[in-house]
Amino acid sequence: MTTIEILRAARAAWPALQNADTDRKNAALNAMADALLENAGDILAANLLDMTAARGHISEVMLDRLRLTEDRIKAMADGIREVAALPDPVGAVISRVERPNGLVIERTRVAMGVIAIIYESRPNVTSDAAALALKAGSACVLRGGKEAFNSADAIVEALQSGLERVGLPAQLVQLVQDTTRQSATDLMTAVGLVDLLIPRGGAGLIKAVTENAKVPCIQTGTGICHVYVDSAADQAMALNIIENAKTSRPSVCNAEEVLLVHRDIAAEFLPKLKKRLVDERRARGLNPVELRLDPEAAAIIPGKAAGEKDFDTEFLDYILAVGVVDSAGEAIAHIAKHSTGHSEAVVSRDPAVLDAFSRGVDSAAVYLNCSTRFTDGGEFGLGCEMGISTQKLHARGPMGLEELTTYKYIVRGDGQVR
Amino acid sequence: MTTIEILRAARAAWPALQNADTDRKNAALNAMADALLENAGDILAANLLDMTAARGHISEVMLDRLRLTEDRIKAMADGIREVAALPDPVGAVISRVERPNGLVIERTRVAMGVIAIIYESRPNVTSDAAALALKAGSACVLRGGKEAFNSADAIVEALQSGLERVGLPAQLVQLVQDTTRQSATDLMTAVGLVDLLIPRGGAGLIKAVTENAKVPCIQTGTGICHVYVDSAADQAMALNIIENAKTSRPSVCNAEEVLLVHRDIAAEFLPKLKKRLVDERRARGLNPVELRLDPEAAAIIPGKAAGEKDFDTEFLDYILAVGVVDSAGEAIAHIAKHSTGHSEAVVSRDPAVLDAFSRGVDSAAVYLNCSTRFTDGGEFGLGCEMGISTQKLHARGPMGLEELTTYKYIVRGDGQVR
Repeated sequence: MTTIEILRAARAAWPALQNADTDRKNAALNAMADALLENAGDILAANLLDMTAARGHISEVMLDRLRLTEDRIKAMADGIREVAALPDPVGAVISRVERPNGLVIERTRVAMGVIAIIYESRPNVTSDAAALALKAGSACVLRGGKEAFNSADAIVEALQSGLERVGLPAQLVQLVQDTTRQSATDLMTAVGLVDLLIPRGGAGLIKAVTENAKVPCIQTGTGICHVYVDSAADQAMALNIIENAKTSRPSVCNAEEVLLVHRDIAAEFLPKLKKRLVDERRARGLNPVELRLDPEAAAIIPGKAAGEKDFDTEFLDYILAVGVVDSAGEAIAHIAKHSTGHSEAVVSRDPAVLDAFSRGVDSAAVYLNCSTRFTDGGEFGLGCEMGISTQKLHARGPMGLEELTTYKYIVRGDGQVR
Repeated sequence: MTTIEILRAARAAWPALQNADTDRKNAALNAMADALLENAGDILAANLLDMTAARGHISEVMLDRLRLTEDRIKAMADGIREVAALPDPVGAVISRVERPNGLVIERTRVAMGVIAIIYESRPNVTSDAAALALKAGSACVLRGGKEAFNSADAIVEALQSGLERVGLPAQLVQLVQDTTRQSATDLMTAVGLVDLLIPRGGAGLIKAVTENAKVPCIQTGTGICHVYVDSAADQAMALNIIENAKTSRPSVCNAEEVLLVHRDIAAEFLPKLKKRLVDERRARGLNPVELRLDPEAAAIIPGKAAGEKDFDTEFLDYILAVGVVDSAGEAIAHIAKHSTGHSEAVVSRDPAVLDAFSRGVDSAAVYLNCSTRFTDGGEFGLGCEMGISTQKLHARGPMGLEELTTYKYIVRGDGQVR
């Protein structure tokens, strides 16, 4: 089927899900989890095809992301069951008002309709995304990476057999068959067929979506995250937070990329920073952090001089740009200019600085005396996550089930006219 | 200034508003209202220029929309004061969670930043939109219709003098100076400078935005609204609702355009309909409604045969497309195919039909036994309205102050790392 035919089939299938109650949706999810396990052999065989084709063409890290095992399939099935156990967001009355004319107006949470998701090579995203969309009441159309196509196709086939087992249409979860760029463009421009498009991927995908999308989108992912160490900081705490934010998992979007230090403590703090991130890590056999320093920082500690782009780069690596600022206000202004609006942290004991930072920094998550690494659906207590939104419209920060829904007004009357 | 320069100035001015508390924002709004009255002479003189230039080129109805009077300026000032009296949406904690690790995570309502609004000829929209954006904590950039430019410019100048009187930057409310199509395109594509674009206008503007916009948008306006009269309807109630929805103000987006009647009552109900909307209205000296009938309806009552497009047209006139359906399910399916997702009503005494309709109709507002005409911020108790959203992302239905804001997560810790 073409991508447009797949979208039309999803839309045609949706009313069956719209009319399914929570028990039925959960039964479907559990049947999908069962089917994954039962079809593990086929899925592993398909994954072997992908692995064989990819070997030599992609890095070992990417190859490991692509690899499936019995255990990983079991983890995928467990993930689906966890989604089944989450509260159903659909049907909740968000607000209710009774008007003087007797009308009762309920703002009610409802499903989006058809959610399309563009993602990359990890096959487990296929089942995670399908489970979240389904629980949120929407049909989902998945467009995975080319190198994981056979794996994703086998996973979707298993999920579809689970849906059919409880009498729901298989078309509620579909994989786009076209793995060329054209299918991504088709999804971005299918006005009226896609209610929500979620691109999950790197800066290139996000840029393509910004340029081309005509359907409603939630942008996810890119994070140029800042930590600002104020003159009134607990410096030991600051060092812990910086090392954690930078090194606990450098490849993720909530990792720190830029450190800003108040001028009044720079001469004292920067040598401690170098010792902690470079010398001590090297001595402990850990990856040392490459510091890229602005001129003021470079006058205090040794390190590479920061280039023009270093304060605007998502390194996703053991690299940290370091700048000196003369106030919290300058830190806030720097962040306004260079941040992607993901996550920023301040370390300070001064309530006025904490207040100014939390008010003035316009990002999805603002951290006062803690690490940027907490921007995550699980850490926020959402129980799941479809991605981290860096836009302001509809959803911001970690997206759980509620963020995958919309609402409508249901108005009950007895003949009222205006 | 060019449109881009205006946007940059708005963004530069925004932090002053972001740091303003409720009292200060309200003081600004009241000063803006005062300034409108004090500058009424200049505004009326500017309006006279617009009226003189427009006379003969636009209809009398449009000319009346463009006209300002002392009373209308007073109404605009009163409108601003009403916005000042509304609760401040900014700063509210939407949800709060304390995590096992001691982090306190607050989802907090915050301002968008820069809101751009494209609208048409009514000068009062200038002050209404500016007041709502400002109260919601955002700078606003207004792009009005060419024929109202002098009026809007004089209004904005007055509003700016009000802002300056309380020490806020005039650039928080600005009017785009370029009245060609280019400025609308500039606003639609100013990625990073516009946090939210609200197009208020007809189908042409909405289409242009869908095709060209690269900034976050909320689409407003077009309404092909349906009323479905079920076999279990109170027919007298149905006639009241239909006449109200169709004729109380045919030019607005929440007016009914399509009537669907259940086959079992069509032979009884349609003659009553014709009597009520055509014969009785004519006898009362009111505009009769032109009925455009599908073949089944045409076999029962006289009227014009519906053409191919009549079930997909926002008439905004005394015209009603009438079709016969064989079930509530068929009505829901017809609406799914032809509606713009604005407002739809069902008239029935059957709880199962009401439930199926409210669940199955995927529109911003679903009315059970009442008129579609209630889709309005005031009628919904929001106290104001920036427009009616017909999209599913972020805001749906009437948009009040909350819908003009976003949220961010403020996370308080004491050194937590992950």
